Amino acid sequence: MRNVSIVGIGQTAAGEHWDRSLRDLGVDAMVAAMRDAAVERVDALYVGNMLGGELASQEHMGALLSDWAGLGNIEAMRVEAADASGAAAVRMGYLAVASGAQDIVLVCGVEKTTDADDASIDEAWAYGTDNVYEASQGLSMAAIGGLLMRRYMHEFGVQREDFAPFAVNAHANGANNSHAMFRAPISAEAYAKAGMVADPISMFDVAPLCDGAAALVLCPTERVSEFGSKPVSIRASAVATGRVALHSRTDPVFLQAAYLSSQQAYLQAGVGPQEVDLFELHDVLSVLAAMSLEACGFAERGKGTRLALNGGIVLKGQIPISTMGGLKARGHPIGATGVYQIVEVVQQLRGEAGANQIDCHLGMAQSLGGTGGTAITHILER
Amino acid sequence: MRNVSIVGIGQTAAGEHWDRSLRDLGVDAMVAAMRDAAVERVDALYVGNMLGGELASQEHMGALLSDWAGLGNIEAMRVEAADASGAAAVRMGYLAVASGAQDIVLVCGVEKTTDADDASIDEAWAYGTDNVYEASQGLSMAAIGGLLMRRYMHEFGVQREDFAPFAVNAHANGANNSHAMFRAPISAEAYAKAGMVADPISMFDVAPLCDGAAALVLCPTERVSEFGSKPVSIRASAVATGRVALHSRTDPVFLQAAYLSSQQAYLQAGVGPQEVDLFELHDVLSVLAAMSLEACGFAERGKGTRLALNGGIVLKGQIPISTMGGLKARGHPIGATGVYQIVEVVQQLRGEAGANQIDCHLGMAQSLGGTGGTAITHILER
Repeated sequence: MRNVSIVGIGQTAAGEHWDRSLRDLGVDAMVAAMRDAAVERVDALYVGNMLGGELASQEHMGALLSDWAGLGNIEAMRVEAADASGAAAVRMGYLAVASGAQDIVLVCGVEKTTDADDASIDEAWAYGTDNVYEASQGLSMAAIGGLLMRRYMHEFGVQREDFAPFAVNAHANGANNSHAMFRAPISAEAYAKAGMVADPISMFDVAPLCDGAAALVLCPTERVSEFGSKPVSIRASAVATGRVALHSRTDPVFLQAAYLSSQQAYLQAGVGPQEVDLFELHDVLSVLAAMSLEACGFAERGKGTRLALNGGIVLKGQIPISTMGGLKARGHPIGATGVYQIVEVVQQLRGEAGANQIDCHLGMAQSLGGTGGTAITHILER
Repeated sequence: MRNVSIVGIGQTAAGEHWDRSLRDLGVDAMVAAMRDAAVERVDALYVGNMLGGELASQEHMGALLSDWAGLGNIEAMRVEAADASGAAAVRMGYLAVASGAQDIVLVCGVEKTTDADDASIDEAWAYGTDNVYEASQGLSMAAIGGLLMRRYMHEFGVQREDFAPFAVNAHANGANNSHAMFRAPISAEAYAKAGMVADPISMFDVAPLCDGAAALVLCPTERVSEFGSKPVSIRASAVATGRVALHSRTDPVFLQAAYLSSQQAYLQAGVGPQEVDLFELHDVLSVLAAMSLEACGFAERGKGTRLALNGGIVLKGQIPISTMGGLKARGHPIGATGVYQIVEVVQQLRGEAGANQIDCHLGMAQSLGGTGGTAITHILER
């Protein structure tokens, strides 16, 4: 396999884009990434998108985005793995370059949720669960999150307030990210008083769905000198899946797919969690942030909230997470999020993270589909 | 790049499956392909599906099918390129094996249309067009096909009746395929008298949407001796795209993406169209069958119907097409079709095509997304 590097990044702001369509957002991010890499043409495009069909009546986004961006007649297709669709597109771009089939590859994650009404969005988002046994029984993603968080609290003897540091950290970091949807810091007191969405999930425990697009330019590592940016190499790319329905899991409060995906990634990169300098995890629910830290070896079982309460997840902590705001404050443009995470890790590794810059050499990103049925992990090195 | 072979094939009947759900159909085909290869486990699964979200409220089909088939915690994701989604999943499986990232890979194309009402199916199918400029203006796939066929007739001076051989050949071949949806031969007279869907597109010019699933097991060519079936090697895998909206194309009656995709495939395989023994093309519309023959070098511009009228496309003709019924008679389970085509080419190359067996060494399959915005070509060798 050839080694693969990232030589271009681009992103739109995450938020409500009333003046830009699904395709506009995708092209904006793609053009930004190509400018960053200083390339005028690419060999292939892989698009991560979950709900273009349901919310914008548009499938066939690979060809359409290539068409709309004027990329010529290149290979293009869409990849979907629910909330992890963006990371799945990165995975496909990685395989295309690693195999030798393509050289310069564009990856774009894009989602547009605001054109639909809230009920339609919530319904469609839940298509990432096992629809027959979960969504169609009336369970929204937040409702499943409520069941999961309640069980986690029961199992490990922690309180709702113990999850506050995840939201506080995310919003503190989002405040300095000009692409973040929410830029106001919040306090632990505000977290404690927040209105319930699906008890014990409050508005500060679930990430806001929004619009946005992010893009990457990949190339074989041996060719990085041809491009105009600081290269970052992909040291690991690993996908694992688990049971999709929560009730099917032997241990619902352990993310088996995240565990296996991170273990494979550590093996590929030849490192362990102690060598990872930052971790962009899938904090779509604060309980999933805690469980991701545990599954990936940063905290013991049931100790994710303890790590956070002890200051372990902040920018200067043991393992900084959500360094640009995470899903919680940057926002969760569903099929785009996995690409945003990689863009943000690249910003950190290049030293372009502004006020949120941390001292780093190795960064990890992990994206989850649904409530963890899919886990996709990438490890990047400066 | 490693060479890749096909060592297992499986398919359900294409048709109306009132007793099987989307996931049931997928698992049926996957299990059949694994049985055929005599493997008990695989390393990854790539699913081709277009409308699971719109018609069955189910995204995240990669993890879900892996979960439902009990494949363990393997890599799994869904790939989508409208009607070419199945072929896109084959492409992804090919890249995963060729790169060295995965060894034994399962590819499954699956679609379930019959649970939705006809209007919903037609609407969703058209999401493969440029929705803003085509579908949302009221153009169904058949309606766009009507415009295209009318233009082709005008441009090349051919009549509606000249397209009859495509339907006659497909239905003649489908009659001998136990997995085909329609198994009754039709005559040129029946074609001439057929009721109009979108003038000049009659019911015999457009393929029937239906349910179905097909699956493949891929492995590195060097490992084919480990499996229980006659191996078939993938000599070429090529994807090209073009303008999605028909009106954006410089020349609407030429399939630019199909041309480029087939040319790349010929280069990869080191062969030309004259060496291809059968061609499973995308006869979702009879006019697209004619245009595919022209784009891929089997007929001159505007002479696709002439080739067919001269007997060139039948089992003993110059270039047999739709040898197991094609989309027209086997049926078009949208996101599964690209995998069915490969399964059928493998049946021919193995000598397992029964009454429709042709003498062959090299077979080609080409799947189109929408009206040709995506074209994916594979060349297989015995």
